[in-house]
Amino acid sequence: MKDGYLDFANSPMGAKLVNALGLPKPLPLERYKAGDPVVKGTVLVGGSVDAQLLESLAGFFKGMGVQTAAHDRLPQWVSVANKAGLTTGRWGGNGKPGEKVKALVFDATGLSDSTQTDALYWFFHDTARSLLPCARVVVIGRPPEECSSPRKATVQRSLEGLTRSLGKELKKGSNAQLVYVSEGAEGNIESTLRFLLSARSTYVSAQVIRVGKPVGELVKPADWAKPLTGKKVLVTGASRGIGAAIAETMARDGAQVIVLDVPQALAGAEEVAKKIGGKAMGLDIGAADAPQKLVEAAKADGGWDVIVHNAGITRDKTIANMKEQIWQLVVNVNLSTQERINDAMVETGALKSGGRIVCVSSISGISGNMGQTNYAVSKAGVIGMVQANAPIYAQKGITINAVAPGFIETQMTAAIPFTIREAGRRMNSMSQGGQPVDVAEAICWYASPASSGVNANVIRVCGQSLIGA
Amino acid sequence: MKDGYLDFANSPMGAKLVNALGLPKPLPLERYKAGDPVVKGTVLVGGSVDAQLLESLAGFFKGMGVQTAAHDRLPQWVSVANKAGLTTGRWGGNGKPGEKVKALVFDATGLSDSTQTDALYWFFHDTARSLLPCARVVVIGRPPEECSSPRKATVQRSLEGLTRSLGKELKKGSNAQLVYVSEGAEGNIESTLRFLLSARSTYVSAQVIRVGKPVGELVKPADWAKPLTGKKVLVTGASRGIGAAIAETMARDGAQVIVLDVPQALAGAEEVAKKIGGKAMGLDIGAADAPQKLVEAAKADGGWDVIVHNAGITRDKTIANMKEQIWQLVVNVNLSTQERINDAMVETGALKSGGRIVCVSSISGISGNMGQTNYAVSKAGVIGMVQANAPIYAQKGITINAVAPGFIETQMTAAIPFTIREAGRRMNSMSQGGQPVDVAEAICWYASPASSGVNANVIRVCGQSLIGA
Repeated sequence: MKDGYLDFANSPMGAKLVNALGLPKPLPLERYKAGDPVVKGTVLVGGSVDAQLLESLAGFFKGMGVQTAAHDRLPQWVSVANKAGLTTGRWGGNGKPGEKVKALVFDATGLSDSTQTDALYWFFHDTARSLLPCARVVVIGRPPEECSSPRKATVQRSLEGLTRSLGKELKKGSNAQLVYVSEGAEGNIESTLRFLLSARSTYVSAQVIRVGKPVGELVKPADWAKPLTGKKVLVTGASRGIGAAIAETMARDGAQVIVLDVPQALAGAEEVAKKIGGKAMGLDIGAADAPQKLVEAAKADGGWDVIVHNAGITRDKTIANMKEQIWQLVVNVNLSTQERINDAMVETGALKSGGRIVCVSSISGISGNMGQTNYAVSKAGVIGMVQANAPIYAQKGITINAVAPGFIETQMTAAIPFTIREAGRRMNSMSQGGQPVDVAEAICWYASPASSGVNANVIRVCGQSLIGA
Repeated sequence: MKDGYLDFANSPMGAKLVNALGLPKPLPLERYKAGDPVVKGTVLVGGSVDAQLLESLAGFFKGMGVQTAAHDRLPQWVSVANKAGLTTGRWGGNGKPGEKVKALVFDATGLSDSTQTDALYWFFHDTARSLLPCARVVVIGRPPEECSSPRKATVQRSLEGLTRSLGKELKKGSNAQLVYVSEGAEGNIESTLRFLLSARSTYVSAQVIRVGKPVGELVKPADWAKPLTGKKVLVTGASRGIGAAIAETMARDGAQVIVLDVPQALAGAEEVAKKIGGKAMGLDIGAADAPQKLVEAAKADGGWDVIVHNAGITRDKTIANMKEQIWQLVVNVNLSTQERINDAMVETGALKSGGRIVCVSSISGISGNMGQTNYAVSKAGVIGMVQANAPIYAQKGITINAVAPGFIETQMTAAIPFTIREAGRRMNSMSQGGQPVDVAEAICWYASPASSGVNANVIRVCGQSLIGA
């Protein structure tokens, strides 16, 4: 779906008019293309007292081929970075800013009391005006629930207020995230850093991500541009829209994709499969014997590595006007079906150890929505399914996570009446809808063999939509 | 602050115009007055298979003097209710609705699989059109994190999608909440039910409340209209606005209130204190020796029972334009000060066993806000403080909880520019701002000696504002 306003606001005449009228100014967002470097510019690094991840960060930045600079109040970054073989320098100084940078990374793991938050202030005060368009902000903390003292838990929890406010303040396509890294999980954050610092995360903002001890083995991909090489991936509902984008993006990252859709949509699935060198499969996943059929197909294929539960339907009515079969249909396809498939695939080993399950929830599952009691029940249930099963599947070396898309430009959203569509598109920090590929990129990050520390996460892909709970 | 549009939209001529133009139709909300019954109408009861709280509910309804009716699919309610001495009957039947009701209560504790959600559908489908204005919906479930099976955890988590959608769908001043009751905590929910079913919760909607095992003793008030009788309560920032409303509402509920504000606002505090038969206290709580002074004052007074941390300030600027002292000031007053006071009051026993700490967070602390990095850090920190300290203070029989107000009509919001104020007022399920008393009522519920099962909760008082995270 084309966003005509976005194009208009970025045309020479349109830009003038938009400025004169004080209208929203969406910026064309940068998106990752195969072969791009992780960060197109410098990463400026800051940290609190006792910042605990500096050496890990330096090592990862080295691997990414990233250029860094040290904020005034973290001069020790220069020696840490040099030790890791990074070229680095000090940024600005004497109250003057340095060059414009593409990313800010702040290691807040050492904050142990709310009286120390001035460290946050200084770093972001000094640097907020020195960001290139579509810049990336990553704040790293410790999970509050794992902190040894309540004071530390409190200040670590306060970081969420910072990143969510920065997401709204920075504009120009920049985003800001908070990553809570468990003690001992410092070595597991590379896939997450690469996702968040690159243009792959362009429509993800103001999210809180938790990285813990690895589930199963942590595997560093031989080629970070193709982390899914050799992986067999099932994507449901993949004949068009977001599902097709997921299939294509996973194939770009090296995966062999099984493009599944209902038998009526098999032609579309075959077209997608052909384009990406994958296989098409026609199956009604809502049918009672679907789990068994999938187990058989996977076993015949030597086992699968990733399941992406993209298939989902909406049938909107207020509950007073809704027919029972519509309620049942939506809850079954969007939730119960996935429970049955996951349990069958995990129990039988058809989903291999080291496997990944990625689910699709929705903003509606988080905030509820008028006319979507059935859909919101199913999508809130998906969050419950992820959280309840994560520790159980982890025993088999399998992670389960979810994305919760906001307004994504698809045929489905194109059918929404104009005014409501415009509101949905603009009511977020990017002033525009996301693209199917933005959802797909988040799914690829979860699916990566290097993401074994990422489990039980639910990440919105919504451009920091205002709408929430 | 007066909401002129609300009055206009409810005037004879205004109502016509508002209808013709399709504008939002805020309804004057019912608010509790001393002496009111808990529910002004019938409570219609429904439940899933194996609903586990029916007998507890019947007992509580009996105590509240509430009239109930049984939904078609829960005919056993009639005998359970009769056994408890309630007059009750069956509602509607043969696909026809019965009388209009004031509240819907659904016991979903027995749901153990997502294939059973049709029970939710039938109850709310049949009844959604039969609600009186300002009706109450309460769904009762089991905390997903405590469920024995992942399937049960999943369907219990899905309830959140239902109540949040109903909150948006029901309109006419009705609200909808989800209460997760731990196994064994069935006896602790009376104060919560009374709050949610009455007009005390008028601006609370789409919230998720957890009731667990009692912290310290569960005390049933001799008089439910005056549950705070004999309780000594400190309210900070209480010379005006929300703080004054908290002091007055707690006094109405029987408390002896210490009305605290900065020395410069002592005259205002004295005025409030005089009105409610309380005591005024002038103290800068941000000062280093404030905790010690409060401990001494409390000890001289025989110990205090409740602390309400209402005092808070905003100093809005984008972080690039913010001065350091403004950052420090806001974080100190809104967060660090409260940490110091709580620790001192709990450690010394100046806050007595059975005590209550109630904090004030904010929607900004949940969602972040442009120009409020300092405020959002402090208010997100308050949530961290509540969650981290709850298990520790519980060992001394003390609970800690927070409210997170949305748009509340005060002098502060009256100063917001017109367009932004109007957006804030209307972007919620009530299409209007809340009143200071709405925040106060939620605080009284936390403070009640009967709320010892309510710990570590953060409840928004926001009319289900669209804005969230």
